[in-house]
Amino acid sequence: MRTLLVVGIGAGDPDQLTLQAVRALERTDVFFVLDKGPAAGDLTALRREILDRHLGEGTYRLVEAPDPPRDRTPSDDRSTAGRAAYAAAVDDWHARRAALYEAMFLDELDDEGTGAFLVWGDPSLYDSTLRILERVAARGKVAFEHQVIPGISSVQALAAAHRLVLNGIGTPVTITTGRRLAEAGFPPDVDDLVVMLDGDTAFTTLASTSTSTSTVAGVGAGAGADIHIYWGAYLGTDDELLIHGPLPDVAATITRTRADARHRKGWIMDIYLLRRTPRHRHAP
Amino acid sequence: MRTLLVVGIGAGDPDQLTLQAVRALERTDVFFVLDKGPAAGDLTALRREILDRHLGEGTYRLVEAPDPPRDRTPSDDRSTAGRAAYAAAVDDWHARRAALYEAMFLDELDDEGTGAFLVWGDPSLYDSTLRILERVAARGKVAFEHQVIPGISSVQALAAAHRLVLNGIGTPVTITTGRRLAEAGFPPDVDDLVVMLDGDTAFTTLASTSTSTSTVAGVGAGAGADIHIYWGAYLGTDDELLIHGPLPDVAATITRTRADARHRKGWIMDIYLLRRTPRHRHAP
Ligand SMILES: C[S@@+](CC[C@H](N)C(=O)[O-])C[C@H]1O[C@@H](n2cnc3c(N)ncnc32)[C@H](O)[C@@H]1O
Ligand SMILES: C[S@@+](CC[C@H](N)C(=O)[O-])C[C@H]1O[C@@H](n2cnc3c(N)ncnc32)[C@H](O)[C@@H]1O
Repeated sequence: MRTLLVVGIGAGDPDQLTLQAVRALERTDVFFVLDKGPAAGDLTALRREILDRHLGEGTYRLVEAPDPPRDRTPSDDRSTAGRAAYAAAVDDWHARRAALYEAMFLDELDDEGTGAFLVWGDPSLYDSTLRILERVAARGKVAFEHQVIPGISSVQALAAAHRLVLNGIGTPVTITTGRRLAEAGFPPDVDDLVVMLDGDTAFTTLASTSTSTSTVAGVGAGAGADIHIYWGAYLGTDDELLIHGPLPDVAATITRTRADARHRKGWIMDIYLLRRTPRHRHAP
Repeated sequence: MRTLLVVGIGAGDPDQLTLQAVRALERTDVFFVLDKGPAAGDLTALRREILDRHLGEGTYRLVEAPDPPRDRTPSDDRSTAGRAAYAAAVDDWHARRAALYEAMFLDELDDEGTGAFLVWGDPSLYDSTLRILERVAARGKVAFEHQVIPGISSVQALAAAHRLVLNGIGTPVTITTGRRLAEAGFPPDVDDLVVMLDGDTAFTTLASTSTSTSTVAGVGAGAGADIHIYWGAYLGTDDELLIHGPLPDVAATITRTRADARHRKGWIMDIYLLRRTPRHRHAP
């Protein structure tokens, strides 16, 4: 039977690979790489760097597959029909990826071979690899077993860089996306919110509410004035950027720094924690 | 200046140490260990095993400190006074630990020395080390800088063992404690809830509601019938236990397995994901 390893490689620093992940690389016959988007070139290069370092240059087999184009159905249409169209587009893209993976496994992997996906960060957070493997299995045309090797996520890289404990004492922490923050705001029942996948600086929706309100109502009275932001971009790489402070004070700096960096490099990956400051906390 | 490294060592499997963590161990002069509770002996042994393996037996200096006794103010008193008493007890315990750390740094570490705390899992989740270091710094009697090296958390170990993606597509995930689950129930605005630090099998409060309701109202109509649980104990160790299924079906099995294991070993560490099954999900 074929074996597929889904290996978390950390969020940017090749030294954040675990020993278990290194052993997994050593027993892999074929590496599958399907990066996408503007960062694809740089991310694939980082994977090669990891493999070169641990296995030796030119000693491993890497298969790069084209990413099936994703139907970019507008995701900001919040009507029922709009949501349904978005869900259908994601589903369709997963189905096409599953067909592609299946073909790769049949073409590139022996019956007893071991393949690996090197997943950015940890495979358990906002990554489609495991969902797609389940679909490949459900298609029933190629038998395989799969194992997951966890990796340091960007959430942890953010916390480590700012030396943060994410939760309050005995209180929860929520991890969410920029889109969800823009739609639903800061959930009332948590004080600590990590935001990933935010292409549109959704934190500014909170900060600007704040700023405008505090102009009217006096210093610090606005909606964002009670929030501290800890922001990080390109974490674990030489380009790492860190900013933190009360949201109304630093929101504009983050937006500008982010736009500049994105322009300079052609892509950006950033993540942040929003934390209600103590005096605005809900009763525990 | 003294340097303190706060090193995440993973949640049980010594192979889940990162390369960065191994390098951190190599440059450490003194390791500080302050395990507590019934698992303390086993956890300290695991830390020694990690150090023996990476540094060689007898080659490193390890300082074990007694844990200042914690005022076990009943934490289930949910009155305002009860909560305040609990917060004060935690605060007092942190203050005493800070004094202890300060003394250890002055006694055991040269002016230019490097000390390390080997933190279970990741230092950013439900761990007091970073908070206490901040208090030591605030006391102003010993100057030091500190760095955080992230580690695989028990949340990720759980997800990897069950091969789970924790979030739904574009939806959030919340990490919370057993006490909070018992108090506040399953938050309405998330479908995926990871529960840690649950000594009282708080999931049974959901399951039993469910079971009793479904007896009355018919199959699957109860509050817990819409929830799937993925449970894991002693993750990453030889004693690892995994159970998953619809909450009403497996709750009793988990409770029994947990009680047996705890009795056998003298302690247990377990964690679980509660997931609303698709047909009971909130609109995304
Ligand atoms: C598709 S998700 C994948 C997350 C990944 N599985 C993990 O565990 O971090 C991509 C998002 O992760 C975050 N991210 C990943 N790597 C990052 C890095 N090095 N610095 C900042 N954010 C990062 C960003 O929020 C980005 O939009
Ligand atoms: C004080 S918290 C520390 C968490 C740790 N910092 C982490 O990142 O996992 C202890 C809780 O972590 C969870 N935990 C830690 N190690 C575990 C393991 N090996 N298996 C299952 N649960 C574990 C349990 O919920 C336990 O009550």
